[in-house]
Amino acid sequence: MTIERSKIKWNGWGWTAHKDPFAGRDDLWTWLAEQLGMPSLLATPARPLEEIAIADSRLNPAERQAFAAILGADRVRSDNYERAFHALGRSYYDLLRLRAGDLSVAPDAVLYPRGEAEVLSALSFASENGIAVVPYGGGTSVVGGVSAANGPFRSVVTLDLSGMDRVGEIDTVSETATAEAGIYGAALEKLLHAKGVTLGHFPQSFEFSTLGGWIAHRGAGQQSHRYGKAEDWLLAARVATPKGILTTNAFPASAAGPRLTDLIVGSEGAFGIVTEATVRLHKWPEQSDYRGYLFRDYASGIAALREAAQDEIPIAMLRLSDAEETGFYRAFGNAGKPKNLSNRLADAYLDARKFDKRACALIVGYEGRASEVISSRRRFGAVAKKLGALSLGNGPGQRWYEGRFHGPYLRDPLMDRGVGVDTLETATSWSKLDALYAAVRTALETAIRETAPMPDARGIVTCHVSHVYPSGASLYFTYIFPRALDREIAQWQTIKKAASDAIAANGGTISHHHGVGEDHLPWMAAEKGALGIEVLRAIKHTLDPNSILNPGKLIPS
Amino acid sequence: MTIERSKIKWNGWGWTAHKDPFAGRDDLWTWLAEQLGMPSLLATPARPLEEIAIADSRLNPAERQAFAAILGADRVRSDNYERAFHALGRSYYDLLRLRAGDLSVAPDAVLYPRGEAEVLSALSFASENGIAVVPYGGGTSVVGGVSAANGPFRSVVTLDLSGMDRVGEIDTVSETATAEAGIYGAALEKLLHAKGVTLGHFPQSFEFSTLGGWIAHRGAGQQSHRYGKAEDWLLAARVATPKGILTTNAFPASAAGPRLTDLIVGSEGAFGIVTEATVRLHKWPEQSDYRGYLFRDYASGIAALREAAQDEIPIAMLRLSDAEETGFYRAFGNAGKPKNLSNRLADAYLDARKFDKRACALIVGYEGRASEVISSRRRFGAVAKKLGALSLGNGPGQRWYEGRFHGPYLRDPLMDRGVGVDTLETATSWSKLDALYAAVRTALETAIRETAPMPDARGIVTCHVSHVYPSGASLYFTYIFPRALDREIAQWQTIKKAASDAIAANGGTISHHHGVGEDHLPWMAAEKGALGIEVLRAIKHTLDPNSILNPGKLIPS
Repeated sequence: MTIERSKIKWNGWGWTAHKDPFAGRDDLWTWLAEQLGMPSLLATPARPLEEIAIADSRLNPAERQAFAAILGADRVRSDNYERAFHALGRSYYDLLRLRAGDLSVAPDAVLYPRGEAEVLSALSFASENGIAVVPYGGGTSVVGGVSAANGPFRSVVTLDLSGMDRVGEIDTVSETATAEAGIYGAALEKLLHAKGVTLGHFPQSFEFSTLGGWIAHRGAGQQSHRYGKAEDWLLAARVATPKGILTTNAFPASAAGPRLTDLIVGSEGAFGIVTEATVRLHKWPEQSDYRGYLFRDYASGIAALREAAQDEIPIAMLRLSDAEETGFYRAFGNAGKPKNLSNRLADAYLDARKFDKRACALIVGYEGRASEVISSRRRFGAVAKKLGALSLGNGPGQRWYEGRFHGPYLRDPLMDRGVGVDTLETATSWSKLDALYAAVRTALETAIRETAPMPDARGIVTCHVSHVYPSGASLYFTYIFPRALDREIAQWQTIKKAASDAIAANGGTISHHHGVGEDHLPWMAAEKGALGIEVLRAIKHTLDPNSILNPGKLIPS
Repeated sequence: MTIERSKIKWNGWGWTAHKDPFAGRDDLWTWLAEQLGMPSLLATPARPLEEIAIADSRLNPAERQAFAAILGADRVRSDNYERAFHALGRSYYDLLRLRAGDLSVAPDAVLYPRGEAEVLSALSFASENGIAVVPYGGGTSVVGGVSAANGPFRSVVTLDLSGMDRVGEIDTVSETATAEAGIYGAALEKLLHAKGVTLGHFPQSFEFSTLGGWIAHRGAGQQSHRYGKAEDWLLAARVATPKGILTTNAFPASAAGPRLTDLIVGSEGAFGIVTEATVRLHKWPEQSDYRGYLFRDYASGIAALREAAQDEIPIAMLRLSDAEETGFYRAFGNAGKPKNLSNRLADAYLDARKFDKRACALIVGYEGRASEVISSRRRFGAVAKKLGALSLGNGPGQRWYEGRFHGPYLRDPLMDRGVGVDTLETATSWSKLDALYAAVRTALETAIRETAPMPDARGIVTCHVSHVYPSGASLYFTYIFPRALDREIAQWQTIKKAASDAIAANGGTISHHHGVGEDHLPWMAAEKGALGIEVLRAIKHTLDPNSILNPGKLIPS
């Protein structure tokens, strides 16, 4: 169930056929301009592909023929759409360049292998001939993970794995499955569902990202509290490298030295290309229950999350919005509309209960056996009640669930109107969480103000705790800001650097689930330490001695 | 709370003061001889240290002075007791040699550092001067993990970490603690208990093993189902290497490339020496409940374990003995005694319920909040009942719990009487578990018979499932056999090889929680693959370029 590349936007999010949900909603844009301290928003459409010049492919005829001999001529593509589609990922920085028509990093060809043997042969040829290879799954990286950078080489090919999407054994006794890494999330879950099981990995990019991509960037689904992050559910992998196939074992546990699977999760295509993965499954949940709570403030919400995580209440998802995010989504939903009766009544009720603008909304999801869902809901409900939270029932949970993959679609309409929007995420221990939260928020707000196009312009910075653990939690920031159109790349770099420096200075990881890519590379040396980077470099050198794989990602040069 | 080396046996298990529980129990030995098909058991006492020749220390005066300058003269020891104590670990193969007085691998000196800086300096000197270094925690390795092998070097020092036992921060907000790696299990848990928390790592060696040792060999406590294996509870480490300190991060989760902590767990002192660890804690359990069930056969017991693991019923321990182990312990307890009334009644009851010699005993342990213990007990009880098991109540659970660290004390009395006893463990997926179980059992029984000292002699082979996971389980075999005294090392090697080959051929890992050491090294290349071994070697070369650390362990040369 490969997705035709032509049906997905090459310079934005998702299906080409997807309609702008805000077309004609001028009221909304007027409201947003006000929030951003701008007199109005400008039209900033993306440049169409037809207008954009793409440099000639730097592959020579012999190289092209060699790849065609390995893959078949129809699987070696270098038309403009393929090269533009695979030039970059879907980060804010990528979108700025794609929309402006900067395709300076387009690959010289896109290869579509159909199996491990073809991947190995292509890698072997590329390694011997000094051609960079960028592995590509769904291409939804938001950190510059698939930029077609040629590094020190003359040329670069992107190796698109989406043609490798066969599912092998689904072992319902051991609750494991083995599949080729290029399979899309939706295709994989459809086959698993038919057997009554699920991987349970549902990131926001679910429809457009692949199993191999999830592994390569060490991703987390929205329900990873129940189903695990990639490092938890990946049991074993087959990895094609210029030195041959590296295989790891799917033992449930082992003491035979370090687990090599752990080196593959998060390796970002720099050590090799995951061709096949064996993953842990769960039974398809008998029941799913998503609901909302309103906490009086952020601190009481955090206390509830910590208690739930440390008491190991079986929960699928806990997502606590800070006061700004809670307020923003409420205002965004109502923007331009007259207050209806139910809104007024809700406001009055909250006032009477002394919930004010410090209130924080939580979405909690339960999945599993019906009896367990009931028991967990009761246990978490007691925690929430003890901490003074108001139950909002199923409504907010259902709305969140229905829209859980739609967030990224909001970015293109904003980008069309001179507005920038980016997200970043980190994680730290519960002890350090408050300081990290405050520091990153301040860094973002300050940097946005200082780089704004007009004196009174400002950003909207929202945050939610997206994933919780017994020892700590992740923070997911979204920031919306008026673009300084004459220096928009420098503006973003300044903001990104300010936030990332604040993360590093306050004991956070530079990424909780987006990965490293090019965007986070400058912070890797500090996070891993000099000797740690040496270790990563030694692993890479062993598997990819000519350093052809995904240049400029994961390991600082 | 360092344990004085003189208070622990240098050639056996545990406290020197521990009394032989079977002294004067000739009835028991007569019964055991019968079980082993032997006419009688021979007295095979260990040689006393005074009779054993130990070669002179190969350290030259300059080297000795250099270590003394780093550590202080009293922390550089080379008396016979220290050298004998640190020569080997506590594997069966080690005991054979220690008891026979073979101290050919005794270290040339034992170093007792008091902190990371001293470890670093000692490593640096050793690396520059070509002296092998063997890290040593409690020395309880049962796979040859601490043999003082000098590898290609003239001399070898053992670095005993037990003097590094300070506990740093106990963070009850994040439920983490940081401690020096040389701390003994009991000392660590005592300090944690005072703060209302626990690491929950209780291996059978708990009293005599250290935090660093647990990490180095990727160990599992008996209750790892609740508290995790070392790879689950280790959040971060500081590791002293000849190239300096490698530090890893304690983030609750991260997508910033592979997690370096995962390379440290199971590194067996071959990459560096863990000096400090940050670990995940749990609240001290409000309630503990251990109880027994009797399953009609092994298959129904396995079915219950799989359902409990895959349904994620919160359980601390599941330990299912096979029919042979169930029968052996029952017979061992009754050996030489006349059947009393309660035994007769129990037999009659089991007969009436049609439990026969295929019956398998399960010990299940619940720990945590009282409400959760009750809920889990009810859930697992329903599973057990559905599968036809008989509840045995708390008695068997309490007896198991009280004796949970005593097992290793049984070995020395057996060794004193011409009887060999060893254990081995593996793990695989539920799908492959039955085949693995049958193959290892057959390999052990056959090899014991073929290497036996007399034609009718035979072994006793018992097994229990010691740890369960959603995707599979571990098998823990104990085998007792009459020693062929004229070729007892070759006999053991033949049996060990037969079992290990069966494990490798049937999809098991060569170790679930004992580690690699010297004993499992021959099976590492097949398990990790040629490229995997290259990766491990590259990591070692980066951190220990002169390969002085723990020669002959972890990585095949």
